[in-house]
Amino acid sequence: MTLRVAIGPSSFADEDPAPRRLLETAGVEVKENPFKRRLNEAEIIDHLKDVDGLVAGLEPLNRRVLESAAPRLKAVARVGIGMTNVDLEAAQALGIKVSNTPDGPVNAVAELTLAALLALLRRLVPTNAALHAGQWKKSIGAGLMGAKVLLIGYGRIGRRVAVLLRAFGAKVLVYDPYLDRGTLRDEELPVTLEEGLDEAEVISLHASGDTCLLDAHAFEKMRDGVLLLNSARGELVDEQALVQALDSGKVAGVWFDAFWQEPYTGPLTRYEQALLTPHTGTYTRQCRLDMETTAVQNLLRDLGR
Amino acid sequence: MTLRVAIGPSSFADEDPAPRRLLETAGVEVKENPFKRRLNEAEIIDHLKDVDGLVAGLEPLNRRVLESAAPRLKAVARVGIGMTNVDLEAAQALGIKVSNTPDGPVNAVAELTLAALLALLRRLVPTNAALHAGQWKKSIGAGLMGAKVLLIGYGRIGRRVAVLLRAFGAKVLVYDPYLDRGTLRDEELPVTLEEGLDEAEVISLHASGDTCLLDAHAFEKMRDGVLLLNSARGELVDEQALVQALDSGKVAGVWFDAFWQEPYTGPLTRYEQALLTPHTGTYTRQCRLDMETTAVQNLLRDLGR
Repeated sequence: MTLRVAIGPSSFADEDPAPRRLLETAGVEVKENPFKRRLNEAEIIDHLKDVDGLVAGLEPLNRRVLESAAPRLKAVARVGIGMTNVDLEAAQALGIKVSNTPDGPVNAVAELTLAALLALLRRLVPTNAALHAGQWKKSIGAGLMGAKVLLIGYGRIGRRVAVLLRAFGAKVLVYDPYLDRGTLRDEELPVTLEEGLDEAEVISLHASGDTCLLDAHAFEKMRDGVLLLNSARGELVDEQALVQALDSGKVAGVWFDAFWQEPYTGPLTRYEQALLTPHTGTYTRQCRLDMETTAVQNLLRDLGR
Repeated sequence: MTLRVAIGPSSFADEDPAPRRLLETAGVEVKENPFKRRLNEAEIIDHLKDVDGLVAGLEPLNRRVLESAAPRLKAVARVGIGMTNVDLEAAQALGIKVSNTPDGPVNAVAELTLAALLALLRRLVPTNAALHAGQWKKSIGAGLMGAKVLLIGYGRIGRRVAVLLRAFGAKVLVYDPYLDRGTLRDEELPVTLEEGLDEAEVISLHASGDTCLLDAHAFEKMRDGVLLLNSARGELVDEQALVQALDSGKVAGVWFDAFWQEPYTGPLTRYEQALLTPHTGTYTRQCRLDMETTAVQNLLRDLGR
């Protein structure tokens, strides 16, 4: 019997056909996402009829969906890290193997973090706007050589950011309560959150979870004129406290790629010193291709191909 | 007799008083720039009366000026690399020692180059503008891992850019007719200009001189959708040919920090895909401090202090 695989993500193989070809070369029949957008529960139940595997996006894969697709559905391969849309318990009970692609986003998110930090340090956005408006206004920026950068959260992405920062000569401070200090390099200095907030000129969030780490109290402890970067989750920061810190000048600039609600239309959009991107940390051609390729490989492995 | 030193650059020690203090600690009497802007010939002649040394900016230090200041003027220390404002032959004939600070701008220019490249690759400027205008529009960007970057000119700044690019996993191609190939690392691939233009996804100019290297013919040889970065000199690129290449889509994006005329108000200001900065490659606090400190040290050494 020919293996059939359904595609969840609306943009699968849009930028590069290689991941689809990998399925076809393995003799798999590919069932495309018929709507080219995220499927709702009724649609994904329909989409999963008579398929052996799913290349999964963020469509709801709850117990009802998985039960309706079993027993033929044998494997789900997420393109990405997050698994909050998958009922892992139900999948296990139904004998459905579930995989994700934890390394895929690392470079793309780390590169966007550096892009945003360098842009803030050198005031790229206002300077470019002024020159396009006919104004030649030089202003002094800051460099990364010797700058103290606190990373909050030191998993795959935090570590990659640290490697890049060290290449620029920055001094990397690391706060991560789950940290095994034996895995740190000499140049990576483990600190308490208090120490880190007190010393850092730049703070970058790479933590998971949704506990608020930066509240009004934490902002008070920061250095005047600090830069704050958030590619992780909106919930890690108290939005109101941040707005106050921007108003007071305590925080000189921020970059946010992850928000409290998305699409985001909140107060940060009114601050010129806020650099904002619409959760596009993983949006590079290389990253999409890496994650899609890895997801297909995971799926083929879990289907015994 | 107390040594007297005149200050040329209008912004000397504005960001950090340390370089001025270095002079004062050495017992030197400091004569400030009275106009806080670049001095013309008459003004610098007046400014150099009865001084032993000059911390120099870009004021005209031609034969007339130097002859009027000799024999008391013994040393000129440029804050920066360029010496085109100094008549070196006249200085030598008059026994005036001249120094510059070739390493000062390296990090600042290399960092701004990476800032601009990453911003272009991830479309930071239009994405940020859209979000501030209430539009949540994701678009796919590109990463540096595996990207082919051609560096034209491989002096101090080009080499530092290469180190940073390699940290991001880019493949660095090098074109420099003055290159000693023995000094290249394994990962740095020397190419002819034709080979480089044919292969590169990104081209970054770090050459000196004012010979046009990128004319209409060169643009034809480039890959479609190439990015072009210029932190070196406007004259290296044919402006009209560049505008045509932007119109045709041959060039997908550019960053210019150095222009044909400055202040620049030319056609690039009309292109959204042109990221423009007002010759601020060296405008970081670290860089100004480094260059000013080194210039003062050079001057004190040349005055025998």
